[in-house]
Amino acid sequence: MSTSVAQQPSPQLFFQTINAHMRTEALKAAIELEVFTAIGEGNTTAAEIAKRCQTSEKGMRVLCDYLTIMEMLTKKDGHYALTLDSSVFLDKRSPAYLGGATEFLCSPMLTDGSKHMTEAVRKGGTAMEDEGTIGPDHPIWVKFARGMAPMMAMPAQLLAKLVDPTADRKVKILDIAAGHGLYGINFATNNPQAEITALDWKAVLEVAKENAQKAGVSDRYRTIEGSAFDVDFGAGYDLVLLTNFLHHFDQPTGETLLRKVHAALADGGHAVTLEFVPNEDRVTPPDSAGFSMMMLTGTPSGDAYTFAELERMFANAGFSRSTLHALPPTFQQVVISEK
Amino acid sequence: MSTSVAQQPSPQLFFQTINAHMRTEALKAAIELEVFTAIGEGNTTAAEIAKRCQTSEKGMRVLCDYLTIMEMLTKKDGHYALTLDSSVFLDKRSPAYLGGATEFLCSPMLTDGSKHMTEAVRKGGTAMEDEGTIGPDHPIWVKFARGMAPMMAMPAQLLAKLVDPTADRKVKILDIAAGHGLYGINFATNNPQAEITALDWKAVLEVAKENAQKAGVSDRYRTIEGSAFDVDFGAGYDLVLLTNFLHHFDQPTGETLLRKVHAALADGGHAVTLEFVPNEDRVTPPDSAGFSMMMLTGTPSGDAYTFAELERMFANAGFSRSTLHALPPTFQQVVISEK
Repeated sequence: MSTSVAQQPSPQLFFQTINAHMRTEALKAAIELEVFTAIGEGNTTAAEIAKRCQTSEKGMRVLCDYLTIMEMLTKKDGHYALTLDSSVFLDKRSPAYLGGATEFLCSPMLTDGSKHMTEAVRKGGTAMEDEGTIGPDHPIWVKFARGMAPMMAMPAQLLAKLVDPTADRKVKILDIAAGHGLYGINFATNNPQAEITALDWKAVLEVAKENAQKAGVSDRYRTIEGSAFDVDFGAGYDLVLLTNFLHHFDQPTGETLLRKVHAALADGGHAVTLEFVPNEDRVTPPDSAGFSMMMLTGTPSGDAYTFAELERMFANAGFSRSTLHALPPTFQQVVISEK
Repeated sequence: MSTSVAQQPSPQLFFQTINAHMRTEALKAAIELEVFTAIGEGNTTAAEIAKRCQTSEKGMRVLCDYLTIMEMLTKKDGHYALTLDSSVFLDKRSPAYLGGATEFLCSPMLTDGSKHMTEAVRKGGTAMEDEGTIGPDHPIWVKFARGMAPMMAMPAQLLAKLVDPTADRKVKILDIAAGHGLYGINFATNNPQAEITALDWKAVLEVAKENAQKAGVSDRYRTIEGSAFDVDFGAGYDLVLLTNFLHHFDQPTGETLLRKVHAALADGGHAVTLEFVPNEDRVTPPDSAGFSMMMLTGTPSGDAYTFAELERMFANAGFSRSTLHALPPTFQQVVISEK
């Protein structure tokens, strides 16, 4: 939706923002009703889509118009069509279908945090009980592992290619907080000599093991059950993967973990961190910078860290050098830190 | 927030939309904590604003960064500043302060509707019990009358100037569903010979009468309590105001009301309708077109009507001619229909 005209005050942005929650609901409703899939199948008028999705025609017309305003559909002469993004990510028949991610992203565990945002701002951390999402063995992470895997398939491929481009040597990898396991698994499919050890809560590892089996790399896939802060990592790793993990904790806690990572690496080994990394201004780029709000409302003391902050955390933990790498077209970044 | 790069699929818009509800929560939190007011008073760093608003510094930093990403603040070298819109509409000390509108716009009565959007799409109308917001004497309209008045002050002034520019003749006005009363009241302040009859639920009229008194027009301000569909309007009106009312009903119901309006007008009198009027494509302009979703989820059969639809409703009710007028800088439009 557009913003206000320069130099003339307008309540438009206020109005749009107060109602922004409706955009979330519209996307959820469209996924639930399989609207994108219906359009992908060739239903293009409100009447046709409504029939396929078993809704009223009026309701479907209003929803499809709203999705068009949200730039998730296009409309011409009364016919709706998918955008490139919608056809790739929201049509159930697409291998990159993300609809399942709503199971995680829209779960009360995640959204309840933002419902208590005022209190979280007062406290400086989540207003939810029991440490928010980072409590031990929290069942949300099984939802994460199942729902977010399609969203992670592309970055996981890109990360393996970035870090192990030649893929011609034996490489021993520890995948911390592996979740769906896709990051480690993609190193294994990228390089037949890669051996992965995945660490996460027991129930989550069941999902990772399923995915390793599907990828045909089970014979090079081990697991360690438990908290990254408590269990023995083993030693001699060439790479330790920290994908979307450090943001859950404050910097001293992160450093404690990184010291343990440092000790588990072989000489010349690398920690590979995938993160939402805001610029120093902390307001750009918008998706990475805005992620700090999710950590404020959902964790006791997590944050989206700048590269300078990450660099210092790794240096304090004994790493010699950290470098920052983009991972286009994703908006996340990779920090590679040398032991 | 930005949208995806052309020709390269990106899950960015999906991710932003699934989290769009956080924008609503951030604006609500900032209003509740008086962040905009604090900045207007001269507090510009996260530490200063946090102190003034009695929050943690970290929480305030994350909130202000998020508001900056939302384009409701600016940030430079660690100092936050209000935008033009924020200073006019979100600083409590501003006469146009809109913070109170959240009492209405964020009330469960309005937001619960959109939480059941899937069911509303299936049914073609609100999934809430008891007709949603249009049930008899619904208390939401007192919140509306109190909370939305500041947002309506400007359009109400503009409407009186548009419809009665010379303001030099006696004019008898019926203000249907008057709410805060500001539309009728502004005709009275614009023209000393204007006489207003305001119609609404009894509790709502108390707010309108307060506002008429504040504006010094009580001696020309009468009221009729009850439903516009049931009560006797009287007759001989030069103008009947229908501001943000027709969108709550289906077209036959609207026409029934318009016949009653037609009968209450003097010969040559006009109905004056202020509405969200989408273009024929129903997806532009975004704010007016998107309003249809609020009616789908909040009312049994309301909608945002195109000018062609409104024109036909008025014609069917006996009006000779309807014309469409913009009301800049608002995004609403005015339909003037002649008896």
